[in-house]
Amino acid sequence: MEPYLLTATECLERFKDGSLTVEAYARSLLARIGQRDSAVKAWAHLDFEYVIEQAKALDQIPSEKRGPLHGVSVAVKDIMHTKRDAPEIDAGSVTILKRAGALLIDEDIFVCKMADYATGKSTTTQFASPKDGPPTCNPNDLSRTPGGSSSGSAAAVADYQVAIGLGTQTGGSTVRPGSFNGIYAMKPTWNAITQQGHKTYSLTLDTIGFFARSVDDLELFAKIFALEDDAPRQAEAVVSIQGAKFAFVRTVVWPEAGPGTLAAMDTAERLLREHGAEVEVVDLPPEFDEMPRWHRIIMDTEARSAFLPEYRISREQLQPFIADHVENSTKISRAEQLEAFDGVAALRPKFDKIASKYTAIITPSAIDEAPLGQKFTGSAAFNVIWTACFSPL
Amino acid sequence: MEPYLLTATECLERFKDGSLTVEAYARSLLARIGQRDSAVKAWAHLDFEYVIEQAKALDQIPSEKRGPLHGVSVAVKDIMHTKRDAPEIDAGSVTILKRAGALLIDEDIFVCKMADYATGKSTTTQFASPKDGPPTCNPNDLSRTPGGSSSGSAAAVADYQVAIGLGTQTGGSTVRPGSFNGIYAMKPTWNAITQQGHKTYSLTLDTIGFFARSVDDLELFAKIFALEDDAPRQAEAVVSIQGAKFAFVRTVVWPEAGPGTLAAMDTAERLLREHGAEVEVVDLPPEFDEMPRWHRIIMDTEARSAFLPEYRISREQLQPFIADHVENSTKISRAEQLEAFDGVAALRPKFDKIASKYTAIITPSAIDEAPLGQKFTGSAAFNVIWTACFSPL
Repeated sequence: MEPYLLTATECLERFKDGSLTVEAYARSLLARIGQRDSAVKAWAHLDFEYVIEQAKALDQIPSEKRGPLHGVSVAVKDIMHTKRDAPEIDAGSVTILKRAGALLIDEDIFVCKMADYATGKSTTTQFASPKDGPPTCNPNDLSRTPGGSSSGSAAAVADYQVAIGLGTQTGGSTVRPGSFNGIYAMKPTWNAITQQGHKTYSLTLDTIGFFARSVDDLELFAKIFALEDDAPRQAEAVVSIQGAKFAFVRTVVWPEAGPGTLAAMDTAERLLREHGAEVEVVDLPPEFDEMPRWHRIIMDTEARSAFLPEYRISREQLQPFIADHVENSTKISRAEQLEAFDGVAALRPKFDKIASKYTAIITPSAIDEAPLGQKFTGSAAFNVIWTACFSPL
Repeated sequence: MEPYLLTATECLERFKDGSLTVEAYARSLLARIGQRDSAVKAWAHLDFEYVIEQAKALDQIPSEKRGPLHGVSVAVKDIMHTKRDAPEIDAGSVTILKRAGALLIDEDIFVCKMADYATGKSTTTQFASPKDGPPTCNPNDLSRTPGGSSSGSAAAVADYQVAIGLGTQTGGSTVRPGSFNGIYAMKPTWNAITQQGHKTYSLTLDTIGFFARSVDDLELFAKIFALEDDAPRQAEAVVSIQGAKFAFVRTVVWPEAGPGTLAAMDTAERLLREHGAEVEVVDLPPEFDEMPRWHRIIMDTEARSAFLPEYRISREQLQPFIADHVENSTKISRAEQLEAFDGVAALRPKFDKIASKYTAIITPSAIDEAPLGQKFTGSAAFNVIWTACFSPL
């Protein structure tokens, strides 16, 4: 099997038993990227030599000194800093990956660096409106969007150009592209992975997550980022689908679900029931209906302080929707901001209480399959409620 | 009058009418610092030449192109980045000040840079336990602490070494040193000033604020940072102390107040009453009694994800209390963390409702005058409730 096809977990086994070197793995990935990049366009400016250099250095590390991610390829969604010569200004998440021995493959395409907001260098931004997506294509169907804003990371993982991708989510920027590209995405609880060194959009909503092609790989990375919950009581520990209890939560945006999503949910429900699970359709109480509106208010108002520095550098060169946030062009009052902030905060424990009755919550990741074209990266309607709830997804 | 004695607002007038150059102002400050630094010890390694260079460059700017802070000296509490040659990695707050034309005087002493956590270079940290203060002295009485952790910024402002200081507060690190040094401190609402580029301790508590020697200067800086509330209704706008209604809020830590604080509160009450104000002593409902404990839980648990990168770089070189946070050595469960987070969130709107009945809330900034010595920077008991409430102070 070509090394580029391996999951992170599979790579690690081969590096350990000596049947694969990191350099051979890196060359396989780079060849894959070389073949596919003109179609998928997941990368902005990839430094092939730097990747090989890192790989060779990793191969030199004696086995007892290797990190838990030794040689695993990771696409970094580079929102702010990965300075190669100044490791102290790596984003916190990147530092953690580096120390675990990951083979970092930046730069993820079309993700705006802080300075780019001021200089207008990037063709789009992480936070572009959904009508302004990057040219990255969905590797499963090049005529469709891979979703956004973590477009490049998700597409590269789906297309076997890299094992793992880092993403961020303020609305639905990790979970949605995960779904559109047919891969696994994990958005942990808010602030479970440090935001340090990533460009902030909304402090209350921004969440770091990742993409993978296997559940084992998600578990591996969850461990690297020290994501852990309290140990379940023995009686609550899930041992099998048989007897487990799932909530199918529809939320106020359920009417937006398209035929693809409806069919996927029906299939999931049938499969779970066939395997002995209990499935309950759960409608959230009406007070949750305000969540999408509150999410928007929090995002727009927190962007005011987040982008004030770039605004002060150059208002003219800022993307108009960012300047609108800073200028509060929609005239959101401070009272409305507080209502949204406190309203969402009050619903978080209420949702936790609902969730505590079930083995797991199942809810759609997207309204339907990936839209055609590259301009529109798709609706985040099914994501924003959970982002605002801080829920792991 | 010697220029170093001027407030920010006074400087601006003189720069505008041409009676003072920024260079002359800078030289006056540097002379003051030269005289006083061996006693107050507010600075780590100050680059005199760089300050003069900035001042000369500011003097060259034609008057119509000058920023609203043209030439005003600011001490930067440099927790993470002020790279002179790479402005895109300045902290957001520093970018805002630079664009307004401020004369930046870093490096603030004894504030730990991100990398220093790993290398152990700094003698203490912003987040040091209160028994581990820096050698900075209180300029009003060199035998006493200036408070912490924004020790250097506050002492430098109080000692006329700089007009304005930037601070941060996770517990009581801005308001307390403001009080101990006899100057004005302003901790705005949480997230009103971007945390971008500052080393995070607790995402939910960290708040950027500033020190000044006049209320006009606080107003000037509030404007630069675009701090604004909804306009008050005409009937609510305060026009005079006469008829205003003040709440003296004591909180659960009131018994810790020492004679200095009690006397100051009595004086304030008497003065307000003499000038026709209404003063009401308000005790918060008992549910607020949990706030200090919840604040501690939030701070300790959020430090886990915040310091994981430095921990992964080198556990051995981390300060023990930071390593303890990452290792959760006090075994705070995820359920306790959620209880604290949601508990505090539920009290915020309750406090806002109480506050809405009054013209202003008056509450102590410190338990008493600054403690003797430099080791103990004083108790934050009177601050943590308000930091957790996100209240502007």
